[in-house]
Amino acid sequence: MAQEFTVAVVGVGAVGEEILRVMQEHSFPAKSIRVLARTPRTISVDGRSYQVEATTAEAFDGVDIALFAGTEGEKGAAVTFGPEAVKRGAVIIDNGADFRMRPDVPLCVPEVNGAALEGHSGIIANPNCSTAQLVLTLKPLHDAFGLKRVMISTYQAVSGAGSAGIDELNAQNTQLAQGKKIDQAGPTFSAQIAANVIPHIGGFDDQGYTSEEMKLVHETRKILGDPSIRVTPMVTARVPVAIGHSEAVLVETERPVTPEAARALWREFPSLEVVDDLKNDSASKRYPMPLDCAGSDTTYVGRIRQDLDNPNGLAFWVVSDNLRKGAASNAVQIAEELIKRGLVKKR
Amino acid sequence: MAQEFTVAVVGVGAVGEEILRVMQEHSFPAKSIRVLARTPRTISVDGRSYQVEATTAEAFDGVDIALFAGTEGEKGAAVTFGPEAVKRGAVIIDNGADFRMRPDVPLCVPEVNGAALEGHSGIIANPNCSTAQLVLTLKPLHDAFGLKRVMISTYQAVSGAGSAGIDELNAQNTQLAQGKKIDQAGPTFSAQIAANVIPHIGGFDDQGYTSEEMKLVHETRKILGDPSIRVTPMVTARVPVAIGHSEAVLVETERPVTPEAARALWREFPSLEVVDDLKNDSASKRYPMPLDCAGSDTTYVGRIRQDLDNPNGLAFWVVSDNLRKGAASNAVQIAEELIKRGLVKKR
Repeated sequence: MAQEFTVAVVGVGAVGEEILRVMQEHSFPAKSIRVLARTPRTISVDGRSYQVEATTAEAFDGVDIALFAGTEGEKGAAVTFGPEAVKRGAVIIDNGADFRMRPDVPLCVPEVNGAALEGHSGIIANPNCSTAQLVLTLKPLHDAFGLKRVMISTYQAVSGAGSAGIDELNAQNTQLAQGKKIDQAGPTFSAQIAANVIPHIGGFDDQGYTSEEMKLVHETRKILGDPSIRVTPMVTARVPVAIGHSEAVLVETERPVTPEAARALWREFPSLEVVDDLKNDSASKRYPMPLDCAGSDTTYVGRIRQDLDNPNGLAFWVVSDNLRKGAASNAVQIAEELIKRGLVKKR
Repeated sequence: MAQEFTVAVVGVGAVGEEILRVMQEHSFPAKSIRVLARTPRTISVDGRSYQVEATTAEAFDGVDIALFAGTEGEKGAAVTFGPEAVKRGAVIIDNGADFRMRPDVPLCVPEVNGAALEGHSGIIANPNCSTAQLVLTLKPLHDAFGLKRVMISTYQAVSGAGSAGIDELNAQNTQLAQGKKIDQAGPTFSAQIAANVIPHIGGFDDQGYTSEEMKLVHETRKILGDPSIRVTPMVTARVPVAIGHSEAVLVETERPVTPEAARALWREFPSLEVVDDLKNDSASKRYPMPLDCAGSDTTYVGRIRQDLDNPNGLAFWVVSDNLRKGAASNAVQIAEELIKRGLVKKR
């Protein structure tokens, strides 16, 4: 790409750092990278040093593309500074949840709905981590067989709550390994996460669903462009894993589907890899696991089976690095797609 | 209970030890307890010492009730010695999988189908850990609303693979806390289980389902006495937790069901406790977690929600100590139920 852009990265927690790492790996066409956060300091990512400046409206002067890392729980910096950046001519890509469901804001996974970026009005939303990896597997199934219903249970890594989540799990694991009791949980999680499973991510609504569960419903429908798909979040749960969200998925389709047909579609689909060799006579059984996905932009799908009682049903297991495809990589890919489509304003 | 019985406990791994512990806690009416295993030795459980003798056919002479702890994966001692014990007049309760699906063998969770014990022919099967806790929640729903379909994803503790599973997780956690890499996984699990999720328990069948997954299907139908219920195991997965299996469940019923109605039924059902207070304004949010269930005979149910799109659908979350209700406690309860019903042969 001959063009080069002035890029701002806002927020340097787990996701912000990963955005810098992915841009580096992808040789992103950045003329300069402005790193912004609440507290100015110097940070180092993979041996490369970045000067972090304070986030102000003026810091977006001359910026072409601003990537907001987003924050878990509280309103992201994108709410305060996003409109300021857009006013100054930037297109912003927000990893936070604030803009995702706005009708005038594209919610985009480039492999699935890159065309949604056309006609944007300055703000693009990056989906929630657990949605991004899910829709990659759903898109080819929906196109080929027509999705009627999606049932899902998640096994989510602590890094979904940022660096603080990783630190909290590590500290608790160390205490347990030293034979100590953990008296006080938190502050990141509502209970001890080491050696535990917490069936609670986000706030609760009146029906008892969590915000994380409802994101799966609303974001999946918006990205696939079909509000008629029934999405049933059985639970979104936190497991004591640092990186990598796993999802158990069951779909019902309009037309009969087979594991063979799904495998063939997924093998052709970008950013997906089928890891599914489970015969008892195979030397090593293969299926996706969080430990194997960390640091990869790829989403892995395996344990692919016909529903036992339904020729229009399929069960499978999806694993992806939640900081990558679930956040940083997808945000950088949106920026690349905007450039490819000529949707970043010329200066 | 005035009557007292000669009891044999066969196998002293994680489950066998828990059987001895539960008998002690329940003040089980044992005249004497004979502890049998492959290797004679002395063991101590909660400060009480037991002399372990070698398992032989003759060791069952004079035994009224024999509890076989079962083994994960390989054929249990019950296959070799169970018929010998029955020949000698004992009734055996096997925690292994070998006899569970035999038509002449009751598969029993006393609160659910205690009557199945009537007319037994010497062998009683204890269900698999993940089935026992599930059917406790399903039974009152089936009676009140008629179950059409059960979808389930599990989050299973390493102690399901016995003491070796706990040892393997602890050793790996210690290595990770010391900053070491884990080069070689196993031998208990197919991959590193610390900081990971393994979507694989048991062997695989031709359709790609695991034996653990198919146990949920066949055992649930047998215990509920209704082969028409569709049971769909989305995945059975191992998580890095020592004790306590968690299950995300979605059911479809013949008649409309509400969270309120389900809660009311579950509050009345023996061995179940509803832990479900999730409103954002409640001081402490409450839901079942494995860390809270260890050492308890109770099964906990929470995250109770209406299916978003179906008045005949309900989602919930079930947690229980897999060594207790999933194995030892249920086995001891079967023995208690046999005594109560006068189904242990008089000497």
